[in-house]
Amino acid sequence: MAARQLHFNAFLFGCGHHSAAWRRPQSPIEHLGDIEFYERLAGTAERGLFDAVFFADGHSAGDPGAGPLWHLEPLTALSAMARATSRIGLVSTVSATFHTPFHAARMLASLDHISAGRIGWNVVTSMFDAEARNHGLAAMPGHQERYDRAAEFIDVALRLWDSWTDDALVLDRQGYYADPSRVRPLHHDGPHFLVDGSLNVPRSPQGRPVLFQAGASEQGRDLAARYAEAIYAVAYDLPAAQAYYADVKRRIAAAGRNPDTVAVMPGLVTYIGTTTAEAKAKQAETDALLPTEHSLAQLGTFIQQDCSDWELDAPVPPLPPASEFTGPQGRYATILRIIEVERPTVRQLLGWLAAGGGHCTMTGTPEQVADQIELWCTSGGADGFNLMPPLLPDSLDEFVDRVIPVLQRRGPFRTSYAGGTLREHLGLDRPAVGALA
Amino acid sequence: MAARQLHFNAFLFGCGHHSAAWRRPQSPIEHLGDIEFYERLAGTAERGLFDAVFFADGHSAGDPGAGPLWHLEPLTALSAMARATSRIGLVSTVSATFHTPFHAARMLASLDHISAGRIGWNVVTSMFDAEARNHGLAAMPGHQERYDRAAEFIDVALRLWDSWTDDALVLDRQGYYADPSRVRPLHHDGPHFLVDGSLNVPRSPQGRPVLFQAGASEQGRDLAARYAEAIYAVAYDLPAAQAYYADVKRRIAAAGRNPDTVAVMPGLVTYIGTTTAEAKAKQAETDALLPTEHSLAQLGTFIQQDCSDWELDAPVPPLPPASEFTGPQGRYATILRIIEVERPTVRQLLGWLAAGGGHCTMTGTPEQVADQIELWCTSGGADGFNLMPPLLPDSLDEFVDRVIPVLQRRGPFRTSYAGGTLREHLGLDRPAVGALA
Repeated sequence: MAARQLHFNAFLFGCGHHSAAWRRPQSPIEHLGDIEFYERLAGTAERGLFDAVFFADGHSAGDPGAGPLWHLEPLTALSAMARATSRIGLVSTVSATFHTPFHAARMLASLDHISAGRIGWNVVTSMFDAEARNHGLAAMPGHQERYDRAAEFIDVALRLWDSWTDDALVLDRQGYYADPSRVRPLHHDGPHFLVDGSLNVPRSPQGRPVLFQAGASEQGRDLAARYAEAIYAVAYDLPAAQAYYADVKRRIAAAGRNPDTVAVMPGLVTYIGTTTAEAKAKQAETDALLPTEHSLAQLGTFIQQDCSDWELDAPVPPLPPASEFTGPQGRYATILRIIEVERPTVRQLLGWLAAGGGHCTMTGTPEQVADQIELWCTSGGADGFNLMPPLLPDSLDEFVDRVIPVLQRRGPFRTSYAGGTLREHLGLDRPAVGALA
Repeated sequence: MAARQLHFNAFLFGCGHHSAAWRRPQSPIEHLGDIEFYERLAGTAERGLFDAVFFADGHSAGDPGAGPLWHLEPLTALSAMARATSRIGLVSTVSATFHTPFHAARMLASLDHISAGRIGWNVVTSMFDAEARNHGLAAMPGHQERYDRAAEFIDVALRLWDSWTDDALVLDRQGYYADPSRVRPLHHDGPHFLVDGSLNVPRSPQGRPVLFQAGASEQGRDLAARYAEAIYAVAYDLPAAQAYYADVKRRIAAAGRNPDTVAVMPGLVTYIGTTTAEAKAKQAETDALLPTEHSLAQLGTFIQQDCSDWELDAPVPPLPPASEFTGPQGRYATILRIIEVERPTVRQLLGWLAAGGGHCTMTGTPEQVADQIELWCTSGGADGFNLMPPLLPDSLDEFVDRVIPVLQRRGPFRTSYAGGTLREHLGLDRPAVGALA
């Protein structure tokens, strides 16, 4: 694994992943509706030779007072960003619970044409009733139901992408536009979806957009094992990362796939300084902007209980074990792990969660952060990272300008793009039509 | 009406609206998946000071042998095209039958931000069972059901666009991101849709994307009267245009709205030549590329019966009256009208239908075509046209370079854009939050 190419995504979110990032005097909060802002960030990540930019997504407005949540819709934003860049991959979250597979497969295939083969799909099942209630459902379907639906959704999307062969467009001006024998409709009539036609987009440059997945629950890990071509993981520290990495790679092998081709990329929050002290001061300054009330509300959504009256300087009250928790498992397991390892006060826990909600945070000089990154990647914890800049654009600039050059000098990160598609950046083969997922 | 500004959309479709356009030796058939092709066309239309480019849409692959149908998905294509242009409007068809209103309202609002206020939505109810069967429905809902659903869909979309006030984003770094009292969730629970939240996109530059509609049936005309801000019409000749125009303007007034603000824009196919003979030769050359078998199949979809064994040089057999026809009314009425006025053979009817499926065709010198355009617009037939270039890029180039200058010299067409948004091009006010549709 040590000799392998590291992989980095730039996970763009609001003014940065720290929930107080927008409160800084210099924050770009006025520009979250400006496509130029995202185009510039994608350009920075491309300058840093990242594999991709990465967007989360959600379907409710959240608490409009607390801070920015969503603004531009990711698929429309990625199209513009595709035209402002030429090499970097572009990954969007698309929910398998709120779309039809035909819509999702079609828009992603269209973007793969527009970007000349740089699109990835982070498939999620969504989680909040407030989102369900914007799309006609009284409440979210149960966990198992969502994952059953997601598996069928992915299966249908893959077959839609394969419904035109690569050589279907014959463009014979005296004869056929496409060879009808090479356009093969699905006849899918499953528990969740009816799709009885071929896609209305010819096969795209990558054949199929790259499939990212981020499940942490049993069902999520099994879905990743079956389908994911890259995995966005959550791990608070190296032991947690190693446990997840070993488990999910084992499941991929058990599903009959080659685990070496599936990059596991934990989320990573970084604060970089010329000295350790400077980096720590940057982190502390940002934490100090955090209104406690909002952080307690955020914690409440993570653990799905009201903690608005918790005493800030008291130890965190005991939480139910993961087996009794019905919300998203990954972050909850991280919170339990932070509590177990750090025995924090409520205030300390809020600080850890404020940026990235419990993902790993690395704070230090460029060399120290590069050391940690290499350690994770040589000791079975990661194949790269989904970088979650706490402060935009600063934290992304710093990582590209100061950490990437260290990793390039030391060897594990590319000094130029070897290929033009996201599949090529990730070392993934272009799938043949009809190949098993 | 004579003194009013004419309006033009450039309706982009494949290699042009003539169904044999792709068969020309010089056709751009190899480039229908290249976003640069559409960006260049949008640039041409912007050079011609058109109000907007316009995309149709559909959800099935059609007959892949016969010719190009869909390739890029319009909303993703328009985002890139928004970044390649700066003033021209960008209108996409979005089906009210296959989306949820939250998705549609969200993507269109996002595009309105990305384009700085240049997005329009052509709302359709879709028509083919093959489309329904890609989105989980066994067959298309009935006509009345589709229009009931569309009215509720539009109503919900308008209210979602109004769910953030224009001044909701206070961006107070020491306080609120958005003023919670200015973000007002819908609580809509109707026959077709549940939407129980606010949009997750702050209000967009135009307040609401511009609503286009194209219904020709009773229900379609009534929907247009209630909601449309511009209308894409089908009229084979001036009397048909005048009848439609008078009827729909009367209905708009009856719905309590000002008919002068709603531009009626019939589809228009043009062949331009230095002489009439040259223009006619261009048209005949294109018609000659038409494989008869494909044209008969196309006619069969228009009239919803098998006419593959019709005798080409015999008169068109009698067709059922419009009242007995259950498919899309506008084109069917046009076919009946062509038969009544022209008494054509089957071969002649195929020629008229091959470009634009029975929309008006004007063939002649730039001055002759400008005469016809002015006549339609000064005699109560149109407020402008949805130009359907039969051959791309040629027919659009010719119109922009040769017809537009004549209309500019004579007065009824702009010589520069007066505003920056599609609403401004169309002379439409920016709607206040909560204003009646």
